[in-house]
Amino acid sequence: MKVREKGFTKLIKVEEAKRLIDEKIAYNIREYEEVDLLESLGRISFENVMSPIDVPPFDRAAMDGYAAKAKDITGASMRNPAILKVIGYIEAGDKKEMILTERSAVEISTGAPIPKGADTVIPYEETRRTGEYIEVYSAIPPGRNISKKGEDIRRGEVVLRRGEKIKSWNIGVLASINKVKVKVYRKPRVAIISTGNELKELGEKLGEKEIINSTGAMLKALICEVGGEPVYYGNVSDDTNLISKKIMKSIRFNDFIVVTGGTSVGKRDYTIEAVMKAGGKIIFHGVAMRPGKPTALAILNGKPILMLSGYPVAALIGFHLFGRKIMNRICGTKDPPLPKVKAKISRRVASRPGIIDFLRVKIYKTPNGLIAEPLKITGSGVLSSIIKSNGLVIISEEKEGLEHEEEVDVIIFKPLEE
Amino acid sequence: MKVREKGFTKLIKVEEAKRLIDEKIAYNIREYEEVDLLESLGRISFENVMSPIDVPPFDRAAMDGYAAKAKDITGASMRNPAILKVIGYIEAGDKKEMILTERSAVEISTGAPIPKGADTVIPYEETRRTGEYIEVYSAIPPGRNISKKGEDIRRGEVVLRRGEKIKSWNIGVLASINKVKVKVYRKPRVAIISTGNELKELGEKLGEKEIINSTGAMLKALICEVGGEPVYYGNVSDDTNLISKKIMKSIRFNDFIVVTGGTSVGKRDYTIEAVMKAGGKIIFHGVAMRPGKPTALAILNGKPILMLSGYPVAALIGFHLFGRKIMNRICGTKDPPLPKVKAKISRRVASRPGIIDFLRVKIYKTPNGLIAEPLKITGSGVLSSIIKSNGLVIISEEKEGLEHEEEVDVIIFKPLEE
Repeated sequence: MKVREKGFTKLIKVEEAKRLIDEKIAYNIREYEEVDLLESLGRISFENVMSPIDVPPFDRAAMDGYAAKAKDITGASMRNPAILKVIGYIEAGDKKEMILTERSAVEISTGAPIPKGADTVIPYEETRRTGEYIEVYSAIPPGRNISKKGEDIRRGEVVLRRGEKIKSWNIGVLASINKVKVKVYRKPRVAIISTGNELKELGEKLGEKEIINSTGAMLKALICEVGGEPVYYGNVSDDTNLISKKIMKSIRFNDFIVVTGGTSVGKRDYTIEAVMKAGGKIIFHGVAMRPGKPTALAILNGKPILMLSGYPVAALIGFHLFGRKIMNRICGTKDPPLPKVKAKISRRVASRPGIIDFLRVKIYKTPNGLIAEPLKITGSGVLSSIIKSNGLVIISEEKEGLEHEEEVDVIIFKPLEE
Repeated sequence: MKVREKGFTKLIKVEEAKRLIDEKIAYNIREYEEVDLLESLGRISFENVMSPIDVPPFDRAAMDGYAAKAKDITGASMRNPAILKVIGYIEAGDKKEMILTERSAVEISTGAPIPKGADTVIPYEETRRTGEYIEVYSAIPPGRNISKKGEDIRRGEVVLRRGEKIKSWNIGVLASINKVKVKVYRKPRVAIISTGNELKELGEKLGEKEIINSTGAMLKALICEVGGEPVYYGNVSDDTNLISKKIMKSIRFNDFIVVTGGTSVGKRDYTIEAVMKAGGKIIFHGVAMRPGKPTALAILNGKPILMLSGYPVAALIGFHLFGRKIMNRICGTKDPPLPKVKAKISRRVASRPGIIDFLRVKIYKTPNGLIAEPLKITGSGVLSSIIKSNGLVIISEEKEGLEHEEEVDVIIFKPLEE
């Protein structure tokens, strides 16, 4: 018996789709901006930064105490303390030159330069002071409690690599080598083209049978979140010619195009037709995942076009799986892993084998550990399933579902509930 | 025997310090800004947002197929298909009114409004079409494959809570209810006061025995990262009067003050003295952690003053542990948990009991699982230990160290190494 076939003839696996992104997308950004150090936060470095100086630039005390010569306190102990004369005090920032003579010490604060002739710092705890003299109760070896010049960063060392996302600690390191400006990748410009006759824009009055283009608004935010610059090309009717024209217009000025809607198991695949009409080459169409089955990828003028479901949750998951990966490739960067916890699932969940299921759950802390309660899922449109959940469980293709109390990995995207 | 005692008489535990923050800091921000929806990304909601509409606003198809009456296909099967007449096609966005009569069906695309008289959607896969008629091979129950009006969000339902950090999916949900402006907390203004005679500002020429105030630059970035507005009050010499004046000046215009440096086991506790001189009440001084022992908290005019080590790594960890918590309290919000993985430690590590140790590690993927390799740590100043690592292991107060190959939780803050 031949049942009517519509849409995708074959679904590819999520891993295969990711592999194809790596294999087929060679496009990357070649322009940079030079920004002030603090402005570089969250941007992607375009340069390998080498340190022109040693950090610290001089030997300095790593503890508060007394700078001394190790040989003067050899064998010192509680019973047999060494006695040293304190000839001065040196603080961090002090520019005075001091030279230690035999059996003398200089009181020193953390960060202060080690005076000439000293090779160790005796912590206060190991001493007792009486007037100008200290008793030392422990033999501190040479080099101890001293941060050597260049110990943190050596001159010529690479402190930031091209492709690294700049975080606060990178700002700290770059400041320590007095780096005032940083070259960062120009932000990827990501075109968003929404399709759907039923869509109105945020703020417009809703007529009957109309809905707001919430997926478009969410995608703008998503692209900002991951460091891109969204460029919205508006909502286009379900018309192959119109969509095709928008794609051709946007491909020139943007690095990456995201089209939502119009790709489904429905009557017609407007978006796929439009991309092909514009000259795009389809890399994949149809992914074995739920939600997000109609996800597709094409290349036009070397640039990636990601086609996502018009439904918000499907678009959200599709963008996280594939859109972020594409943006990272374009800027030669990587994301750190997602936060995950182990939890026990609170009830049986069925899943179709051969399909990856993205199960939205609510994780609770209980005296018996974390419990993940699956939300009732009614479709890929149901964004409230994301706002009511705080975690996502990925049910792999091989599995037919989850057993009651099965232990699962949960990706967490919000604070846990008590 | 009485060894000289300096600085803190008693160190409190990290958990106790956190508890004191919760107990003693009642200050919070009471002003909001009203911003455009997309601008609200990453901000903290000041309002409980209730939906004025049902989403979806009408019953709509959740699948592509045929809208029909369930009673017309009762008992349908492969061997005994039901036959329905297709009287039209309805797409998403269609405004045409259709009414189903007995034994008829309307071809329908996902998202389209369900025509009057229909109560189920038969997926294409369960049908075969010949001209105007379809054979239906399965009895689909009423309500199946339909997104009911209000199923995602009910009118009156709270879709965003005060204190929630606004993410892309919140933007999606808010767009779907046509929310154009959102009330968000004014960003917390966080004053930064650096102390230290040896410090120069970024971009200034370094003299001998001087270093750049990298901790100040890093803190500005950290405060931006967590959604605050840093206000830099410059670097003050180690002088109680000057520091005290800066604190009194900054407390008026800011919600929270971070002072770095000048609190140590050193000769004098300039910062602590300055805070007390300004009228501040010390909540704790000295925390059982390494790095970060000199961390202290005070309250002045009800506002928190966090005193951190001037050393970058100690300041970074201290800010993450206590500064973020304080900022969250001020805006009534919470952070999601940090990303963690389990890994085996590559060598024995010693740790002093009674002190929490923050061990910087490099995590590698190996065929035998993740391995965490501890970095050589030379002090709280060594920011390069952060740029060379990608994870942090917390060694609790009770432990005397880690055994070779012991399994540990690692907080990951960068991509893993292959």
